[in-house]
Amino acid sequence: MTAVSSAPSTSTSFDLGPARALSCRECGHETPLAPEYACQECFGPLEVAYDFGRVRREDIEAGPRSIWRYKGLLPVPSTVSAHPNTEPGGTRLIQADNLAKALGVRKLWVKDDTGNPTHSFKDRVVGVALAAARELGFRVLACPSTGNLANAVAAAAARAGWQSVVLVPSSLERAKILMSAVYDGSLITIDGTYDDVNRVAQELAAENEDWAFVNVNVRPYYAEGSKTLGYEVAEQLGWRLPEQIVIPIASGSQLTKVDKAFREFGSLGLVDETPYRVFGAQATGCSPVSTAFKAGHDTVVPVRPDTIARSLAIGAPADGPYALDSVRRTGGAIEDVTDEEVVEGIRLLARTEGVFAETAGGVTVATAKKLIESGKLDPDAETVLLITGDGLKTLDALGDRVGPRATVAASADAVINALKD
Amino acid sequence: MTAVSSAPSTSTSFDLGPARALSCRECGHETPLAPEYACQECFGPLEVAYDFGRVRREDIEAGPRSIWRYKGLLPVPSTVSAHPNTEPGGTRLIQADNLAKALGVRKLWVKDDTGNPTHSFKDRVVGVALAAARELGFRVLACPSTGNLANAVAAAAARAGWQSVVLVPSSLERAKILMSAVYDGSLITIDGTYDDVNRVAQELAAENEDWAFVNVNVRPYYAEGSKTLGYEVAEQLGWRLPEQIVIPIASGSQLTKVDKAFREFGSLGLVDETPYRVFGAQATGCSPVSTAFKAGHDTVVPVRPDTIARSLAIGAPADGPYALDSVRRTGGAIEDVTDEEVVEGIRLLARTEGVFAETAGGVTVATAKKLIESGKLDPDAETVLLITGDGLKTLDALGDRVGPRATVAASADAVINALKD
Ligand SMILES: Cc1ncc(COP(=O)(O)O)c(C=O)c1O
Ligand SMILES: Cc1ncc(COP(=O)(O)O)c(C=O)c1O
Ligand SMILES: [Zn+2]
Ligand SMILES: [Zn+2]
Repeated sequence: MTAVSSAPSTSTSFDLGPARALSCRECGHETPLAPEYACQECFGPLEVAYDFGRVRREDIEAGPRSIWRYKGLLPVPSTVSAHPNTEPGGTRLIQADNLAKALGVRKLWVKDDTGNPTHSFKDRVVGVALAAARELGFRVLACPSTGNLANAVAAAAARAGWQSVVLVPSSLERAKILMSAVYDGSLITIDGTYDDVNRVAQELAAENEDWAFVNVNVRPYYAEGSKTLGYEVAEQLGWRLPEQIVIPIASGSQLTKVDKAFREFGSLGLVDETPYRVFGAQATGCSPVSTAFKAGHDTVVPVRPDTIARSLAIGAPADGPYALDSVRRTGGAIEDVTDEEVVEGIRLLARTEGVFAETAGGVTVATAKKLIESGKLDPDAETVLLITGDGLKTLDALGDRVGPRATVAASADAVINALKD
Repeated sequence: MTAVSSAPSTSTSFDLGPARALSCRECGHETPLAPEYACQECFGPLEVAYDFGRVRREDIEAGPRSIWRYKGLLPVPSTVSAHPNTEPGGTRLIQADNLAKALGVRKLWVKDDTGNPTHSFKDRVVGVALAAARELGFRVLACPSTGNLANAVAAAAARAGWQSVVLVPSSLERAKILMSAVYDGSLITIDGTYDDVNRVAQELAAENEDWAFVNVNVRPYYAEGSKTLGYEVAEQLGWRLPEQIVIPIASGSQLTKVDKAFREFGSLGLVDETPYRVFGAQATGCSPVSTAFKAGHDTVVPVRPDTIARSLAIGAPADGPYALDSVRRTGGAIEDVTDEEVVEGIRLLARTEGVFAETAGGVTVATAKKLIESGKLDPDAETVLLITGDGLKTLDALGDRVGPRATVAASADAVINALKD
């Protein structure tokens, strides 16, 4: 059988599972599912709208360990797992009693997303972006990235047999650059900040209609992948919501989507609709959303980033205003911490719980500490910290502060003496 | 209530789950469960013997995602998950069609153990060692290590609130040294080879009876942790054994335990007892077991390692003879590959499947390739490759061969031009 198919991007019969339409976050205008990201009426960002039907715990529990157990809640075809993908998700949620004690809180959990295929939560969003992009007719996966997204896109494209075009600032950490390159896609490093790289990507996306820039022209689908972090936390807590959650902010997308996930689980009756508060974490060297929060503003003034937390170094965060909304609506707060505190946060988490996070994780831990000290985080409420990236990718941040206790000759006495010092 | 307890190491009432005794691999002599590792009769290595009782698939499937779903098959108390531990295991097994095609085999799977808490399979063995050591009365976790074990011991000790003493060669990769140090135990680097470090550890273990050197005096328990790799592969294949499996060899322990796991699953009726063949992989620069295999010897002549696959650089492998047994009994083979081939193996796996392995993974992939080319691995039989460690820990191995395609100014034209070259 042969068939003449219209250009994929104009077809209206995409199978994206429960996704029904794209709707504008600003004016609410709805448009059919398509590779679009800006509202035709007001240029506001588009978001996926759904018809979920009935979703039951048993069906989710019977699914695979990956994010695809939640496919009934994502803009992906029901056949999603049949295509080669990195099978992200299913990372551990550990009860962090030692860290709780160190921070002076009653009950704390660490969601350790370093267990993902390329060791950050970005494998989740890329998994969803790839599945949607395939259905939308794309065959090249691309992105501008602060590093982790680059790793995830390059790996996912390799596994799917797609070409990839990955753009990162040339100042990125060596580990993130090499890990982006090893999968043998096209990695281009660009002299400039992430915001410069992002601007170039916007231009390229407009000119190359067959490239799926996951966080540009496929962004509405991509962003939904972060919901799986929220779903997993709730399921792993035994089908209930935490009282407080601390989330790092770069573009602000992840934070808004975890919030969305909690609301969806509540309205679908998968969890009780108990109150929860969302907290945002930034590095002071790139804290436009934190600054807006503290000033009581609804808009975010762009900054030029200067921080070791390079993965969070987005000076003009696309979802900043929506992150502000989520935090304010739930009664949370946003705080920022110095690079010095970031490193202390990394070390504190490692020392207490054996989890080695990258700078973004240091931001989250240090921000949680600051929020507790200032009384904004309730020490008696159960709290989850999202650790979204891996310490092996930002080794230089540790500087000279971390290293062997001693280097000695090969003798038992030498070791015993070194341990005495 | 107070109780006067005898010194733990002389008690005979350890709760180590299904473990019944220690039995000598050489003479079969049995001794009660205790912190011992050498036979009193013949100095042969001791191994855990079990009374399994009935073990059912349903019970395993109802367990946690971690290795503790197999606690009924491990020398650990049934309360093991109640103590803080890193919750290792549950890593993905992915069908590797692209790599299969590149290698010219019909059906291939990659077991990606980089998803573990410290990104190697060593979290599994350390998880079991810690649980057994706690029960045996230890309170300090120690090891000599080629790197990955160091990371796993330091992290597990931190999370458990134990002290750790970790000994590694000072020539180790920077990532492995920093990752061992960040958890804030006592890391000592030693000028010498791993075999020198191991000798020092043997001495220290004899002198410090309250230190659990996981791979020395607690080795019989520790080694059982590698069985979980075999269990998981079989369960993830849908409760059946693969026909062929390729496993890297350092001390040879892992290989023998995956073999043991397959036999146990068969004799317990958890899988059909279908034939399988075990293949071993070494780097030519440290290939004493491969050399012995090819020469038809039962014993292994120690070598001085010289290879970039530092995690496998054990010149005097304790379980070498038993690895030879497993391979010969099952009709497999052992092969070794050059450092050049190791790097090509890393790149091939990354390019085809989006999995970034360390040098040990490169050894496994390159060895599989060589075994296929020489006809020792049957291309028509279903094969599993064990990828046991993470590419981020051995970045230097990539040398200059991996990097960005170009570094350009922040303009769309510059990117397009760079992509044309
Ligand atoms: C490790 C890590 N955590 C958090 C974030 C924040 O993501 P978002 O842009 O969704 O706010 C990023 C973004 O790159 C990241 O790399
Ligand atoms: C990544 C990796 N794979 C495999 C091995 C081999 O382990 P074994 O000593 O059990 O043979 C090691 C040992 O350190 C390792 O680090
Ligand atoms: Zn609009
Ligand atoms: Zn004996």
